[in-house]
Amino acid sequence: MIIREAIPGDEDAIMHLINELAIYEKAPEEVFATSTEIGASLFQENPVAFCHVAEVDGKVVGIALWFLNYSTWLGKPGLYLEDLFVLQEHRGKGYGMALLKKLAAIAIERDYERFQWWVLDWNQPSIDLYKQIGAEPMDEWTVFRLSGDALRKFAL
Amino acid sequence: MIIREAIPGDEDAIMHLINELAIYEKAPEEVFATSTEIGASLFQENPVAFCHVAEVDGKVVGIALWFLNYSTWLGKPGLYLEDLFVLQEHRGKGYGMALLKKLAAIAIERDYERFQWWVLDWNQPSIDLYKQIGAEPMDEWTVFRLSGDALRKFAL
Repeated sequence: MIIREAIPGDEDAIMHLINELAIYEKAPEEVFATSTEIGASLFQENPVAFCHVAEVDGKVVGIALWFLNYSTWLGKPGLYLEDLFVLQEHRGKGYGMALLKKLAAIAIERDYERFQWWVLDWNQPSIDLYKQIGAEPMDEWTVFRLSGDALRKFAL
Repeated sequence: MIIREAIPGDEDAIMHLINELAIYEKAPEEVFATSTEIGASLFQENPVAFCHVAEVDGKVVGIALWFLNYSTWLGKPGLYLEDLFVLQEHRGKGYGMALLKKLAAIAIERDYERFQWWVLDWNQPSIDLYKQIGAEPMDEWTVFRLSGDALRKFAL
């Protein structure tokens, strides 16, 4: 197994894992992205997102897709992990952990200071793992989202 | 009152409002940024963050500081509001709402689709406002953060 940066040509495999993650999160109907859009986002000149993959025998079996957020209190960017996913038949071998460690190393190397992500409250195996590696739940915060018709109506 | 994009020269005023926000959030000791760092982040060639300000009589009295996040399910960026703050003596006049509306308009114009932010669970006046404008609390998600010594230890 190797961990490497995603490169052009990986977009179909990445899209497949994004779809599998959506099935795991019980929301497959919420995926509208195409592999072309994902590739354009990752591989443009100033990428809006980044992706590392776990590869086994030439096949992408895991992804960590991330972007930079920003802390006004630190005055610098942080690393935000949007999607972490390993194909079911490749779980239990530490690939997810290896992807997390790679991103943690990038955060340290580039002085990002904070490494953050969300987790669904019912995803207890992941929550246990995150606590085990020293991550802290930010329980006092709630994310709000304005989208769709509500966003359009408010923007007027 | 006018809403406008922040420009070089605004960094001291922006830093002042970031510090006031930290006092409001009961964590003034967690601010380490300098106005120079904030200015560098906002006004570099490919900014990592963006800021709009509410200005009254030539003085910055409110800020909305934001960055782009990314949705793998939509295959496009979203607008994430990091800090929204209006100086106490200028509250109740709709400046915060005007800043929110400006960002919503940007989101629609640039096809960002989602406009998101966090709120502290005890900040009921803000929560009420956010629900009133049609934003939805993402209650089923918890943010995890790995930082400081835990991040360094894990990255090894």
